[in-house]
Amino acid sequence: MPQLAAPPPIAWDGRELRLLDQTLLPAREEVLVLRDAAGVADAIRRLAVRGAPNIGVAAAYGLALAVTDDPESLESSWALLRRARPTAVNLARAVDRVRDAALAGGAAAARAEAEAIHAEEDAASDAIAAHGASLLAAVRRPLTICNTGALAAGGRGSALAVIAALPAVEQVLACETRPLLQGSRLTVYELRRLGLPHALVVDGAAPGLIRRGEIDAVVVGCDRVAANGDVANKVGTYPLALAAAAAGIPFVVAGPTSSIDAATPDGAAIPIEERDAEEVRRAGGALLTLPDTPVRNPAFDVTPAALITALVTERGVARPVDGESVAELLR
Amino acid sequence: MPQLAAPPPIAWDGRELRLLDQTLLPAREEVLVLRDAAGVADAIRRLAVRGAPNIGVAAAYGLALAVTDDPESLESSWALLRRARPTAVNLARAVDRVRDAALAGGAAAARAEAEAIHAEEDAASDAIAAHGASLLAAVRRPLTICNTGALAAGGRGSALAVIAALPAVEQVLACETRPLLQGSRLTVYELRRLGLPHALVVDGAAPGLIRRGEIDAVVVGCDRVAANGDVANKVGTYPLALAAAAAGIPFVVAGPTSSIDAATPDGAAIPIEERDAEEVRRAGGALLTLPDTPVRNPAFDVTPAALITALVTERGVARPVDGESVAELLR
Repeated sequence: MPQLAAPPPIAWDGRELRLLDQTLLPAREEVLVLRDAAGVADAIRRLAVRGAPNIGVAAAYGLALAVTDDPESLESSWALLRRARPTAVNLARAVDRVRDAALAGGAAAARAEAEAIHAEEDAASDAIAAHGASLLAAVRRPLTICNTGALAAGGRGSALAVIAALPAVEQVLACETRPLLQGSRLTVYELRRLGLPHALVVDGAAPGLIRRGEIDAVVVGCDRVAANGDVANKVGTYPLALAAAAAGIPFVVAGPTSSIDAATPDGAAIPIEERDAEEVRRAGGALLTLPDTPVRNPAFDVTPAALITALVTERGVARPVDGESVAELLR
Repeated sequence: MPQLAAPPPIAWDGRELRLLDQTLLPAREEVLVLRDAAGVADAIRRLAVRGAPNIGVAAAYGLALAVTDDPESLESSWALLRRARPTAVNLARAVDRVRDAALAGGAAAARAEAEAIHAEEDAASDAIAAHGASLLAAVRRPLTICNTGALAAGGRGSALAVIAALPAVEQVLACETRPLLQGSRLTVYELRRLGLPHALVVDGAAPGLIRRGEIDAVVVGCDRVAANGDVANKVGTYPLALAAAAAGIPFVVAGPTSSIDAATPDGAAIPIEERDAEEVRRAGGALLTLPDTPVRNPAFDVTPAALITALVTERGVARPVDGESVAELLR
């Protein structure tokens, strides 16, 4: 398969933040050049940049840009960025770190802290891939949802980095991931660039294929891991966990420890973002239903720890996933 | 809410079959006028008419049209219609009945048999609705998938007829039902005509909402019920059954006994139609992914009998659902 050229998802030159606009992929590769916190917050809200780790990195740079331009804007920009999206904990953690750095050392320290967060996420990806590939070495037919590659997380990503590192992979099944189709638009784009054989399925079809024995393991990312090991991830993840458990195949969550929030006791305490109705009423711009149809549109769901075979992080693997094994990762 | 006017899904005047073209709903209400088996088979294949019972009714009229025009075409038209779609057993059963009638009594008998099948499905709907509403009288917040109203089955339909008959319904949650969006296009259209409060969700979101306690019961139709009670239904049904079982809420299948196939021992023996890749690559005409992306597109999945709380038919309710209770319905 052809390797498609692409700009990096996040690029920083010390003065400007460049984000590959993921809302336009795979049809167009356009780069947003951002110089202030408002622009970064808007890019996060409308998913031009997405994936819990990359949201954190982008927000960190956004706050660094703000304090470089005007040190007085620290608190207001911090608050603006912190509330751009509610579910991923990486965002709050990243802007908190940059604010602390700015308070201690000014704009230069804020920029250095944002760069450190970026470098940490890049390094985490390689370690996650190595741990995950070791755990799942025999897996030939993995299934995933949403996008967890370089577009979502540092380096080569989280769950998709694990899949790309599997030694015997034959075919990756990618869920399209309604409503915003991160699977159809982004994961397929990255799988093609990686040269990995793949097929796309609608989200509702994946559990039936798992039941029919066509999948060896489900590998997904995470937007927030609670202290007890419950995981909030892209809506549609929980049914994959139910189906994997029923079929007796591994359900593995991969992500950096920056997505673990020890202050959130369990999944019920994770705020679930409810997004705009138009996302459900439309796909690819086309109206799919009557124009004013009422909609429920939670962007995430919660998978209870008991359904998760293993949590793969850059610091190692929690298995089984419970309060004790998650706490061990953070020690 | 406004009651939208609409032509009936299936109308027969003894010489022509009129089908409301469901591929164009809800944007346009156009009626196909069909006079031969080839036209009916094509309408079935491309889902202009759909829903297991209505596929059977349309195919029955298609064969009646064929033998009226040319008695010699009985066998070839029977074979053409019988293979138009593989999963719903109603189609095979209906054309077998019309063929038997034609062999015994010629074209007039074939037409009468098709009319009898149509009348039976209309009568079944009322009985299904009554049995289901009695079983689920306390349900305020049902969830359904695909379309199971008058567009899919006789009378007011199967699962949607049950939902419309619930005495205390507050809100119906409708899964959009990718890839062909029968929920967004057809169920929303029918719920509005029925004046029932409703909201649309993407298929992947429904299990998470069930887990959060927002749903009282899942009510779905069936394309084929095997002798042991396993049910093939629209792809995306099985994850709803898993989530209902995990949450301890009823998962109820509603359909006429014409959808039960005693000759199919279990779900593994039900042929699952795999449809065109373009259905997954597109929605509402819009391309959602890279143009030549490989696709898996099973149109149905199988829910094992053990996950089904009750099977509601015009002859009564099987509960629990197993080989014995299903056989009892057919006695």
